[in-house]
Amino acid sequence: MTWLEVDEDSGFGIENLPYGVFRRDGAAARVGVAIGDRVLDLAGLGEAGLVEDRGWFAADALNGFMAAGRTAWQANRARIRELLTDARHRDAVAPHLVPVADVELLRPFEVADYVDFYSSEHHATNVGRIFRPQGEPLMPNWKHLPVGYHGRAGTVQVSGTPVVRPCGQRKVAPSDAAPSYGPCLKLDIEAEVGFVAGVPSSPARPVPPRAFRDHVFGFVLVNDWSARDLQAWEAQPLGPFLSKSFATSISPWVVPIEALEAARVPSPAQDPAPLPYLRTDEPWGLDLRLEILINGQPVSRPGFDGMYWTPPQQLAHATVNGASLRTGDLFASGTVSGPTREERGCLLELTWNGAEPLELPDGTKRTFLEDGDTVTIRASAPGANGATIDLGEVTGTIRPAHC
Amino acid sequence: MTWLEVDEDSGFGIENLPYGVFRRDGAAARVGVAIGDRVLDLAGLGEAGLVEDRGWFAADALNGFMAAGRTAWQANRARIRELLTDARHRDAVAPHLVPVADVELLRPFEVADYVDFYSSEHHATNVGRIFRPQGEPLMPNWKHLPVGYHGRAGTVQVSGTPVVRPCGQRKVAPSDAAPSYGPCLKLDIEAEVGFVAGVPSSPARPVPPRAFRDHVFGFVLVNDWSARDLQAWEAQPLGPFLSKSFATSISPWVVPIEALEAARVPSPAQDPAPLPYLRTDEPWGLDLRLEILINGQPVSRPGFDGMYWTPPQQLAHATVNGASLRTGDLFASGTVSGPTREERGCLLELTWNGAEPLELPDGTKRTFLEDGDTVTIRASAPGANGATIDLGEVTGTIRPAHC
Repeated sequence: MTWLEVDEDSGFGIENLPYGVFRRDGAAARVGVAIGDRVLDLAGLGEAGLVEDRGWFAADALNGFMAAGRTAWQANRARIRELLTDARHRDAVAPHLVPVADVELLRPFEVADYVDFYSSEHHATNVGRIFRPQGEPLMPNWKHLPVGYHGRAGTVQVSGTPVVRPCGQRKVAPSDAAPSYGPCLKLDIEAEVGFVAGVPSSPARPVPPRAFRDHVFGFVLVNDWSARDLQAWEAQPLGPFLSKSFATSISPWVVPIEALEAARVPSPAQDPAPLPYLRTDEPWGLDLRLEILINGQPVSRPGFDGMYWTPPQQLAHATVNGASLRTGDLFASGTVSGPTREERGCLLELTWNGAEPLELPDGTKRTFLEDGDTVTIRASAPGANGATIDLGEVTGTIRPAHC
Repeated sequence: MTWLEVDEDSGFGIENLPYGVFRRDGAAARVGVAIGDRVLDLAGLGEAGLVEDRGWFAADALNGFMAAGRTAWQANRARIRELLTDARHRDAVAPHLVPVADVELLRPFEVADYVDFYSSEHHATNVGRIFRPQGEPLMPNWKHLPVGYHGRAGTVQVSGTPVVRPCGQRKVAPSDAAPSYGPCLKLDIEAEVGFVAGVPSSPARPVPPRAFRDHVFGFVLVNDWSARDLQAWEAQPLGPFLSKSFATSISPWVVPIEALEAARVPSPAQDPAPLPYLRTDEPWGLDLRLEILINGQPVSRPGFDGMYWTPPQQLAHATVNGASLRTGDLFASGTVSGPTREERGCLLELTWNGAEPLELPDGTKRTFLEDGDTVTIRASAPGANGATIDLGEVTGTIRPAHC
């Protein structure tokens, strides 16, 4: 129990304590931790000598603290729990609590490289059925390795930042002889869960699944905005490029791995058995429940526990070739989709590429996103001691194209 | 004429003046300019009040200076020319010249995002013929847009850094039922030319071809090391990932755009005419002659002037969707291949995927790279006043795999 009044249902109680970066009244950015409807100012606590701060917290990004490593992460989290639960600290700590409503939440870390996977079997199967109705829905490699690719790190933005509808080349009708230039006509979302590396790895030193916790700081929600018409035209043979690179949104709070320990569940059985470098005996499914809302109306509830490839497998694969990790490397899961229509994580699937429009509770219909639409993705998970862990939300509103 | 004794054939004369980052005797890194067989220490010139230095040159990367913009670049270049040609400056400047043999050349800039294109028609056609012998060699989109994808920025390394043979999943024989794990068996090079952005652009503000010089600082040579067996297995449907992400090497000297003005030539005619956002009336072919050597023996001499898509078209395309540029964004051309076998820019093409081994002048044969092989790519171009501009070289030696 904290000495603060924290709504136990808020999802931001003492078992969560996610890290973020905030700014108040135009002052310099600082690192904070969410507790209830407040932000605990870690830079202020550091100045007051209440937490160890090696230049980590009077900063505009979590990167310094993320690079400090697991021992520092655990020590800081334990100390914050102590400060918030032992009432003797109340008078010293209370001045460093700021209402979250009074601050601006910034992008929590500087993104080094951004990798996007494709790890939901339901999503990959649906996409295969939509685009290759005659063939096998999954490519031959899909059950042998977590398929992924690099995205654009420089356009990863914090939740709340608007998304300008991209312009580019696309065929308005698939049968058109030539492409035309204009606004994206099939603007979509992808509801994803990402993890961020804190501790670098060395070249030619892969990170096996058992070392996942030594390198990874925590998890965020990701909306990998996608221009489906640009993608259909551009992506052969080298994969998505402009259809993804205009914007990727992440949630402002990074939930530490430790907060998600109680959410770990077995992941789906893998057949064929993966090669040894991808194997782990530990359960690394995560019981995160996602919710997607368009203009405040729920349209889907994907479960992350059904993901075929797990985060430690993704990281082991991404480094098996000797590629090194940097602090701030972001790895997203790919669209999280479950087995039923109500659990699909993007409009491409929800509307079957526009063939089956989605009727929203307010009576309007959508195939893809319209200008002015606001998309919000939320998630929560079971925490320790019966608590709920809220991953917060990632949201964005579509602005009209400039072309 | 400079007051230094510069070998006019060195390619590093007064018309070149490329920028790099160097370290001497373990001291802190600094920015320098190559002249003949010396490095001109710009940090030292700045301290002496001989060049303007707003914190640009006592730095371990060119990023600060690259962000300063075209006016600053032009002014600095003009001032260096003045200092090196007016003998009255000799006594003041000479102490800041360091033999290049006495310094370590570092990666010249911090890479923000790394994009790799696929802009040689000869290369794309050869690859299409090798992998899809029954179909059209070029995909339908190829002549409408410069196909590209994002690579891994964190593993871009300076020339001279060894390359450890990557491990990963691949099918040893294409007919194998399942993949196996082991060292790459088809390790390859890709001889490319890259450009680096200095001045950022804003979200949703594309950079048209006419604004290329306002954003781009200069050019480097690139070797985009490639694991062809990993690539063949992993790359459907989202493109190359681990087959490229283990290492990409760049040359240590960044040649300013201004030094390459005399190398500009018309690029190949484009049919169909590109969409308006890709059009430019200015000639943007570049008459760079590349040379590829394996263990010191020339194996190919690709010409960059035959590239179908030009650098300003690549940049216009990469930003047409509103993706913003950051200082340090690196854009590589894709493999530079000419129409004849002697002008192919990778071993995949030179040996037709291993079917036609290459006989080196020393009598040894290669399909793909062997451990211990050293690959060097060089390039030169015509400069102003009849000079030769040398882009320097990008080199690397293959170390054995760790698996």
